[in-house]
Order: sequence, then structure tokens, then C-alpha cells
Amino acid sequence: MIARTPSLHAVGAATLALLFATTSTIAHADEGMWTFDGFPAEKMQADYGWAPDQAWLDTVRASAVRLTGGCSASFVSDAALILTNHHCVASCLYDNSTGDNDLLEHGFIAASLRDEKKCPGQQAEVVTKIEDVTGDVKAAIGALTGEALTKARDAKIAEIEAANCTDTAKFRCQVVTLFGGGQYKLYTYRKYSDVRLVWSPEDRAATFGGDPDNFNFPRYSLDGSFLRAYEDGKPVKTRAHLTWNPRTPQADEATFVVGNPGSTSRLYTLSQLAFEREVRLPITVATLSELRGRLIRAMEESPEHAREGLDLLSGVENSLKVYIGRTKALNDPAFTAKLAAAEADLKAKSASNAEIGDPWAQVDAAVEAYRTLYIPYRYDAPSGTLYSYAQALVMGATERAKPNAERLPGYTDSALPLTEKRLLDEAPVYPWLDELQMAWSLSKAREYLGVDDPQTRLLLGKESPEGLSERLVTGTKLADPTYRKQLWDGGLAAIEASDDPMIQYALKLDANQRALKQKVDEAYAGPVTQAGAKLADARFDAYGDSLYPDATFTLRISYGRVKGWTERGNEVPFQTTMGGTFERATGAEPFDLPSQFAAKESAIDKAVTYDFVTTNDIIGGNSGSPVIDKAGTVIGAAFDGNIHSLGGNYGYDPVLNRTVVVSTAALQEALETIYPAPRIVKELAAK
Amino acid sequence: MIARTPSLHAVGAATLALLFATTSTIAHADEGMWTFDGFPAEKMQADYGWAPDQAWLDTVRASAVRLTGGCSASFVSDAALILTNHHCVASCLYDNSTGDNDLLEHGFIAASLRDEKKCPGQQAEVVTKIEDVTGDVKAAIGALTGEALTKARDAKIAEIEAANCTDTAKFRCQVVTLFGGGQYKLYTYRKYSDVRLVWSPEDRAATFGGDPDNFNFPRYSLDGSFLRAYEDGKPVKTRAHLTWNPRTPQADEATFVVGNPGSTSRLYTLSQLAFEREVRLPITVATLSELRGRLIRAMEESPEHAREGLDLLSGVENSLKVYIGRTKALNDPAFTAKLAAAEADLKAKSASNAEIGDPWAQVDAAVEAYRTLYIPYRYDAPSGTLYSYAQALVMGATERAKPNAERLPGYTDSALPLTEKRLLDEAPVYPWLDELQMAWSLSKAREYLGVDDPQTRLLLGKESPEGLSERLVTGTKLADPTYRKQLWDGGLAAIEASDDPMIQYALKLDANQRALKQKVDEAYAGPVTQAGAKLADARFDAYGDSLYPDATFTLRISYGRVKGWTERGNEVPFQTTMGGTFERATGAEPFDLPSQFAAKESAIDKAVTYDFVTTNDIIGGNSGSPVIDKAGTVIGAAFDGNIHSLGGNYGYDPVLNRTVVVSTAALQEALETIYPAPRIVKELAAK
Repeated sequence: MIARTPSLHAVGAATLALLFATTSTIAHADEGMWTFDGFPAEKMQADYGWAPDQAWLDTVRASAVRLTGGCSASFVSDAALILTNHHCVASCLYDNSTGDNDLLEHGFIAASLRDEKKCPGQQAEVVTKIEDVTGDVKAAIGALTGEALTKARDAKIAEIEAANCTDTAKFRCQVVTLFGGGQYKLYTYRKYSDVRLVWSPEDRAATFGGDPDNFNFPRYSLDGSFLRAYEDGKPVKTRAHLTWNPRTPQADEATFVVGNPGSTSRLYTLSQLAFEREVRLPITVATLSELRGRLIRAMEESPEHAREGLDLLSGVENSLKVYIGRTKALNDPAFTAKLAAAEADLKAKSASNAEIGDPWAQVDAAVEAYRTLYIPYRYDAPSGTLYSYAQALVMGATERAKPNAERLPGYTDSALPLTEKRLLDEAPVYPWLDELQMAWSLSKAREYLGVDDPQTRLLLGKESPEGLSERLVTGTKLADPTYRKQLWDGGLAAIEASDDPMIQYALKLDANQRALKQKVDEAYAGPVTQAGAKLADARFDAYGDSLYPDATFTLRISYGRVKGWTERGNEVPFQTTMGGTFERATGAEPFDLPSQFAAKESAIDKAVTYDFVTTNDIIGGNSGSPVIDKAGTVIGAAFDGNIHSLGGNYGYDPVLNRTVVVSTAALQEALETIYPAPRIVKELAAK
Repeated sequence: MIARTPSLHAVGAATLALLFATTSTIAHADEGMWTFDGFPAEKMQADYGWAPDQAWLDTVRASAVRLTGGCSASFVSDAALILTNHHCVASCLYDNSTGDNDLLEHGFIAASLRDEKKCPGQQAEVVTKIEDVTGDVKAAIGALTGEALTKARDAKIAEIEAANCTDTAKFRCQVVTLFGGGQYKLYTYRKYSDVRLVWSPEDRAATFGGDPDNFNFPRYSLDGSFLRAYEDGKPVKTRAHLTWNPRTPQADEATFVVGNPGSTSRLYTLSQLAFEREVRLPITVATLSELRGRLIRAMEESPEHAREGLDLLSGVENSLKVYIGRTKALNDPAFTAKLAAAEADLKAKSASNAEIGDPWAQVDAAVEAYRTLYIPYRYDAPSGTLYSYAQALVMGATERAKPNAERLPGYTDSALPLTEKRLLDEAPVYPWLDELQMAWSLSKAREYLGVDDPQTRLLLGKESPEGLSERLVTGTKLADPTYRKQLWDGGLAAIEASDDPMIQYALKLDANQRALKQKVDEAYAGPVTQAGAKLADARFDAYGDSLYPDATFTLRISYGRVKGWTERGNEVPFQTTMGGTFERATGAEPFDLPSQFAAKESAIDKAVTYDFVTTNDIIGGNSGSPVIDKAGTVIGAAFDGNIHSLGGNYGYDPVLNRTVVVSTAALQEALETIYPAPRIVKELAAK
């Protein structure tokens, strides 16, 4: 599955439309994660003989939903029924499960509105307005550099967001940095912070083939689910929604994917790519692989562990596949040669432009500085839900006492409601899982920092990673949302008076974390933002302004077509059928059939299109995005890319990159036959 | 610790003395793992004002011991007392431990000869003769290529070995490929297949600081132990031994390390290095990290698991540190620039030599072919002791039925005694640990081959990695050495008649393994051997014949000196003292003091030199090597390199690379005060 959660720390990178087109003979017709105010209608018209008009785009935009858990989705009824992926609601199923009733295993069907279940931490957001605030932010930055630049930028952003969203219960304002600092846009969202679970198939129906089949195709996955947005305890009446169209996709027909790609790095400079290949990816793959191993074994210890660890393991395995795919891409000389050629082309085209200067050299120097800061910055805190609560409480207490413009980004007036919701929503905590993550992350901190590093001593004192984790997890009361609320409301005085060991630990780490962020802002984030603005100017000058920015977990539209590909000489057909599942099943995990699905074998129409692939350009964060046809009706939900799409973080390959979609036809079959939900069938069919 | 076990599949690589000297201003005075017939006495004389004479070299050579477990060692008494590392006898301690008596935890002191305990699978070997057989082997190869080349070479080697060692109970003959095919030498060993445990400290005394301190210095490790070679039930009377000298090392004094470095790749061509960096290392680090995680968690489940898994975990963590260090080295542009310059220099010097041709292009083509064979070849079998028994039994049955010259290398007349000993020696098997390794390796096979690969189907059928592993491990009787003996003696008929599921499984995999080996020989090993001979000729032509070959787990001598280094501006002193241990101890694993060591705190002379570093050029396989002074007396046992030595696989850096040694002074203090062994003290002191 494409990753649910986009990186929260993407540091300014910028991108370029038709990146490869300048250096290769292949026209990358379908490349691009376009902003709605920059849709290349003329280009699509030229390539496809058709392009959507403004009304089409407006309806689609108003129907598109962002889920703050890190996914995309869409309204599919006038009562705020939301289509998304199963893997986007897995946390909700998990949080609502008990030892007696495992919703992941058995699936979930709400018989009535009353039975729909709240999803902790989840919020649905719909873009209502996009405004260009580039002038304001750039003016605030002026000639500042380093940390002064990031401070001034963040202060101005906080100010703009606060001024434009006074009703933070219903609206969320977010200034987004595009083109790595070339543009700043204010997105206003109508938000719905009460999101409930409506319908989900058995987990195995969505995860059939498990990690081995993840990012592969042909695929047999029912990775779809339904949620509903509520307000004031009632379903929201949606202003716009997509028409549900449970039909078979046609070869080569045009498809649109509308959603929130999380993060791409397509215009990283070569020094940033070298850093990825040489530093970040190797550490990430090695350490996540170890976590994977610890989890796999721990989950074999009992059925409870198996259930409680599944959500984290799925996320870890998914991320690992992504990072391993990226490593392969950056170790492929043909792939990196194209990236190098693109940089060389831009440099050549900018050589005579004195305004541009040498932003590449500035990035090189920033990356060089970041090489020494990276390990300490990466390991300034342990992992784990309980620790993250403590850190949010400690940071929040200090930050909220400051004027809005001086706070860290997660604690500004516009960001606080979601931070608070994530902190205070009731959700189960499994102490063994927190202990496992803490011990793992602290032992990796010691491994990469070294035993004698002052930061290792700060993190561990004289304790072992295992001993410290056990003491903190056993001793803390932060699993209790009432206690969290009490500390949050009590502010800094309550935090400092608390004898909770996890709070005391987070307090102990706080100063070092702030100092490190300051250093990174000064030596890396600031310079890269400054250079990013210049690089964006260089691109606009060289290639015109019909470009798409790197992904930022904001709304984009991609166009493409239904199309298979050729794998080592063999044609991969564009679709699978539901019946194929029974042929692929072996009985052994993860190729075992889910029991209700298996029980309905004779009733299922085996010819129904199950999953299909398109050439749309997507990435993690797009999970759950509606796949829309020319008529504007929804014919599927994007849930994955093929294995070749993993290099898509750095560049799109039109020959091999594919989006993987679960068809509305398959979901309709499931709603009617396997996991019957006549109430939802009726709601979807309403005109 | 430097790795105990050298790679068993090192494919022809060659090396070059003074590799960097040709491209850098630093004279690498101390680089080199020299063969005894090629010791550069003149060069050492020039650098040190002293060099050993032939008598000195002869005595040292006759005292040097190779341990077939993958370590080095030396005789230190006339009754075959052997000095080596604790980590080289850990398997023996582990195999002789029971739930009631954990020899790893408590250490071991044999009060009398009668109490000395046999080490399963272990054999001690002393070189008695080295002969050049290059002409014979090259003549047999003639103009052959590909698999025909490797077959002819292996047949000739089998013939030479069989002809020269008729008494295989006492002698072992081994033809070694040096300079990647440039030279072939016949090593004759006097062998002792009954090796017993004499004295070992507590495991924590040797592993104090555990994985975090591994490959680091300053260090506080008592990584020494004593074994004894037996024959006919009695201690062997040694022809030569080193004089035990428990004294303090002096700054800058000359030191010699005599042992068996396992494997280096210093003369890999750039395409081979690229393969390492792009393919082999990333897969190795990711998959071993996962195994590490599975083991860490499994060992937390019970004290039995903690004890039974320790040996494997130590090995995995040690290997991981090595591979991560190599990854760093190959991702360091300054380091790889030197390697590239060395290749360019050799190419330039060989340009006018028509005899050489273009062996680099031949290696490039072989590596390109190997890229597609590597994953299937790597994953042609699962891991685990029980499976490895089955594979040896199945392969052995077929191979032994063939004429000697047609057998696979591990099954020739000269190789069979050790193969048989390893297979038939009684050693404990822990089913959970075998299951864990099998399930891990099979799931990695499926991950890297892909679910739909025919080899995945061969390995798994319709079973899951977990289900298959459980079925085979639970069903097999191969843990019983009597049953193994029965099948070994019964030959192919017994194998084919066996209903043992592990045997049946190994039989099922056999044909595919042979076919893959054939393909690898044809496309990679053959061409690389052919090119290796040319590259060796090129080097001899360009730089003269005073070169040392890449390491091959055969006897070498390195000279250097006692010397610290400068780490980020700080001087690292060349030695630690035993008292320093008490300051570094935190009480938390792995910085907890071993109990007997802690109990003797007041009695221990804290000023005694504990560990020290030298500039000697060593690598995994050198573990346990005696560190010898000019007088020919032993002043320590090498047990590790510092973190900078990890790039040493590809090139030696005289500024930073260091060998880490446990001093004889510390061992003497331990023998007298902490783990008292007056019998051994007396034996060591005898003149």
C-alpha cells in the first residue's frame, strides 16, 4: 500500500514538470501531481483529445477529502459518506477492537447510523479556498538567512493562518510551502473532527497477499472502506459529492486521481540525493528492519500481541518496502543519470542569469553541515505513543505560553486544535508495544551516536534502553486521557509539578531537542529554503510556469489512463478479477482466504473486476484517493503503486510506474454479497 | 570483535601491496597481510631499523595455530596449550553448557587435564609446508573458460591435495588460490581434531560493553581463553611454541600479528565494488538487521532463550557492524576516490602490455551477469543448523559416489574429514532457534525473489515460511548425531529411503542448487578467475612481485607498532587499564560487571594494562592471533579492530586503522587473581 502517513518533516525541495522530457526522448505525458489552480488542461487536451472544464474541476475539488491520519478520500453521498482505503481505517478498526471483538479480523458493518463508530485522532478536511501569499511570506523573510529566516517565515505563516481562520472549530488554515520556498499558498479547509466508521471488510480481504504482495500487481485486494463525517452529532450534509459508479474500467480510458500526495523529492539537488543514498536510507532501512524483526517475533508470542502489533508492523513493512525501493532507484545508474542530466540542464539554462547565482553550491554546503547534525537530530527522542504524549504535553505547555508568532509550528493557534485532538482523543495503549518501540529506538540511538556521546548519556543516564523503557512505561499514567487532559489544561505549572516519570523524562530532553532544531534550522533548513526560492525562480525562467510542485500532502490532481505494462517481456494485464483470488489462495498466511469471503465463494461473481492499474502519478498520502472518469464519476479508490513506482519519490517513469486501484465494481459486489450492507448500497445508488 | 568466521565463498579477488602509496603521499608503512614466504624484511628493516631473521620467522610459523571454527591462535606451552580469544571458544562454552551450568555466564576453569572439555566441530591446524603449484593448476586450466575452467581447476586441486596428504587423519592438504587466480599454493597442515577447553573467564568479562563497545576503543575486554590440542586422548607435545610474556606493551614498539585473516577484497575492480555497494551490502544489512530484531525479542522471552540465542546474536551483531562499516566506507567519496585512482594507475601502467588485454572489461561483464544470478544464488536454501546437516548429508551422498576429481570442493578426499567432523560431532540443537532462522531466511527468500518466482514456489510450495519451518524442525530426527551417522554411512540409498522431512526437503532443493552453482561458475566465477590471473600479472609487471595477496584464511604475518590515534582532534591513548573497567561500569547491561570480576575488585591490580592498540593490518579470521614482540614472545591476543578498520576489507588506512589486543599482562592477572588457575600459570611460566 502506498504509505498512509506522509513525512512530517519534509524540508523544502522543489520540483519540475517534464523533468525527464528535457533529457529523454520519451514524452512523460502522464507525469505530474498538479495543483487545482495549475491544471494543464491544454496539455491534456493535446494528449487525450479531451480535458476537464472548470465546473468539472470545481465539483471534484469540493468532493475531495483529506484525512489527517495521512490519507485521501472523497464524499460519495449527500450525507457525507466517505470512500477511502481499508488501510486508512485500520487504526480506527484497531482502536475500536477488543480482545473479544477484533474488528480488523472480522470487518465491520454499521447496521444503522447509531452503530457507526468514532475514529480517534481522525479528522476530515475539504479545501474551500486557495490563496497566494508568496509576497507576504517572502517580504517577511527579506534578506534573512539561517535560523532567522525560518523564524521569520514561521512567524508570518502563524500570523496569516490565525488571521484567516478565526473559527478554528470549523475551519483550518494552512500555509503551504511549494517549490521548496518558491511559492507560499494559504489553503483554507472546512474541517470535520468527528469521523466515524461505517463499513469495512475483513482485514485479510484487504491485505490478501500481505507484505509479499504489497506494491505488486496482479493483485487481489479489497482495500476499500467507508467512513462518515459528523458535526454536532449528525451526519454532515455535503455541498458536493462524487457519483458512485460501480462499473468495469475500460482499457486506455482516461482516469483522474484526486488526493493528497504526501511528499516527493523530485527536485532534490545531486548533493541531497547523495545524502539520501549514503546516509538517510541506509540508516533507515537497517533500523526499521530490526524493528520489523522485533515486532514479528513479539507478535508470535500470543494472539493479543498478534492483534495489537499488527497496525504498527503493517506500517513498518510498508515503509521498509518504500525505502528499499528508493535505495534501489538511487543505486540504479540509469535512473540517477537522468536526474544528473536534469540538474545539468537547469544549471546550463541558468548560467547566464545573474539573479539566480549558485543555489546548488548553497545546498551542497547545507547538506555537508547536515551530515554532522543528522544523527543527533534523528535520535533526539525515543519512539512510542506514551513518550509522544509526554513530548506534546511538555512542548505544548511552553509553547502555548508564548505569543502565537513565536511558537513552534505544531503549536500555533491554527495547528493547536489538531495537536490537541490527537493528544486527548481516547485510544488504546499497549504497554508492551510502547516498551518495545522505546527500547528499540534508544538502543539505536546509542548505536548510532556512540556510547560515549553526551546525547547518549542524556537519553540513557546509567540505565539500559530496556531498563529505562520498562521503568517509564510501567510508571507513567499517560495512557489515561483524563490525566493527559489534566496536564494539558494545567499548563507548565502542572507539567513541572508532575511526578510522572515519562513527563519528567520528556522535560529532561526538551532543551536539547530545541537546541538541535535551532542548529538544523540555522545550518540546513534556512539555507535550503533560501536556495529553494532561487531554484524555483531558475525553473520558472527555464521552463515556464506550467510546473507542478513537489508533493506536500495538499490536494492535487493527476491524469492518466487505464493501462498495464510489460515486465521482463511479459504483458501485465491492466485488471484482475475477484475469482482470481481463489486461484491465488494457498491456505497459508498471508495467502489464506478471509473466512466470510471464502464462505461466499459460490455467490461471488468471479468475473467482476477486482483491482486495476493506471498510469496516474501518485505517492504515499494518495491512499484512498478517488479514481474518477471523464464523466466525473468514481470508478475506484487508489491504494498502492506497483514496485516500479517506488523510485517515484525522485522521478516518474511513464513506462513502468503504475497506480493500483480497487474497483468500485468490486466494492459493490462486496457490499451486496460478501459483507452485506443494504443501507450503504441504497445510499450510494441515490442520485 | 573481528569476525570469527571468514566467508566460505570468497570468489577470486586479488590485491596489491602499497595500494595507496602509488596514489597518496602517505607511505603505508604498516599495510600488508604477508605470506611467510614473502615477508618484506628489507622494507621493515628500512622502516623500523630491525627485521626478523629466518629462524625467528620459522619458530613463529611453527607456533601458529589455525582453528577451523574460523579463528587464529598459538601454542604457548610444550603441552599444546593454545592461546586464543574468548569469542573464539564461545561456541564451545555454549555447546558444553546446560540449563544448570551456563559456562558462558560463569566461565570455565579445568582443575586438571581430566576436566578439559571437548569442543565440537573444532580442529587445530599447524602449517608444515608451503609449495607453489601454480604451474600445475594453470596448465590444467589451459585455455578453458567459464564453468569448464572452474571444473578443471577444482579437479586439479582435488588431485594435488589427495596426492600430497595420504594420511588424512593427521594431515590436511589445501590448495589456496592467491591473487584471485595469479598463484596457487599447496599448504600442508599437521592437524589435531581433538581440541579441548582449558580456561575461560566469565562471558561478560570478555564482552563488557557488548555490541555498543564492539569495534570501539578505549576498551575493557578480557577476550582471551585457553584451549589444548589432544591426540590419542593425550595432550600433543608441541614442536614449537611462543614464550608467554605477561608484560606491559611499550609505546611505538614493533609488534607482529601472526594469524589467518579470513577474506579481503582490496583488489576488487570498480565494478565489483559497485556491486558490493549497490547490491550485496544493502540486502545483507537489511536482512541481518531483521534477524537481529527477531533474536533480540526471542531472547527476552525466557532465560533459556537468552542463553541459547546468545552465540548466534553475537555473530549477527558483529557481522552487521562489519557490513555497516563497509557500507560507510564505500559511501565515502574520499575513500572510493583512492580505490578508483589505484585502478586507473594499474590500467595506465598496463596499457602498453598486450599480454594483459582488458581483464577489467571481463570482470565488468561477469559482474553484470552476476547481478541477475545473485538473488537466486543467495536464496537457494534456508538457514539453520538442522537444514545444513540435511544439505551436507544429501550432497555428501551424491558427491562421495563420484571420482575424487569430479566432486564439489567440500567433498573431495582432502576436505571430507573436516566436513564429516562438523556433521557428526555431537552438539546441542535448539529447535526454536532453528525454526526462527529457517522462517526468517525463507521469508527473505520470498521477499527478494518475489512470490511468483519458480524458486519461491520450490522453496515454499503452498506453505508459509513459518508453517514449513515448524513442520520440518518438529519432524526431523537430525538433531541426533547417531541418526546423522547412520545416514552418512548409508549413502545415497539411505538418504533416498529416509522419511525424514528435512532430508526430503534438502533432496527437493538439490538439483536447483547445483544448477545455480553451475550458472554462477559459468557466468561469474570462471570469468573472474580468468581475469584475476591477468590482473595479477598486470600487478606483478607494474609493481614488482613484493606484493601480498588478498586474505584467504591462510597464515599471514603483519608488522606494525603499538600506537594510539587522533579521533576528531582528541588523542586516543594506546592502552587501557583493568581499573578503568570499574569506572565505565554502569550496572546496566552490557556495562554490568561480571560477578566474579566485581567481587575481586580490591584484589585486582588496577594499573595493569588491559587492552591496547597497534597499527597491524588485520581482519576477521585474525581473532585470537598472537601479538608478538621483537624477542618473539607473546604479549597479547588480537581480538578486534577499531571502527575505522571496517573499511579495511577494501583498503588499509594507516592513520586510523588499528588492531585491538588483550594483553598477556591482563590475562596473567586474571589467571592469578580473578579466575585462579595455578596449573595454567605454572605451565605458562615454564621455560
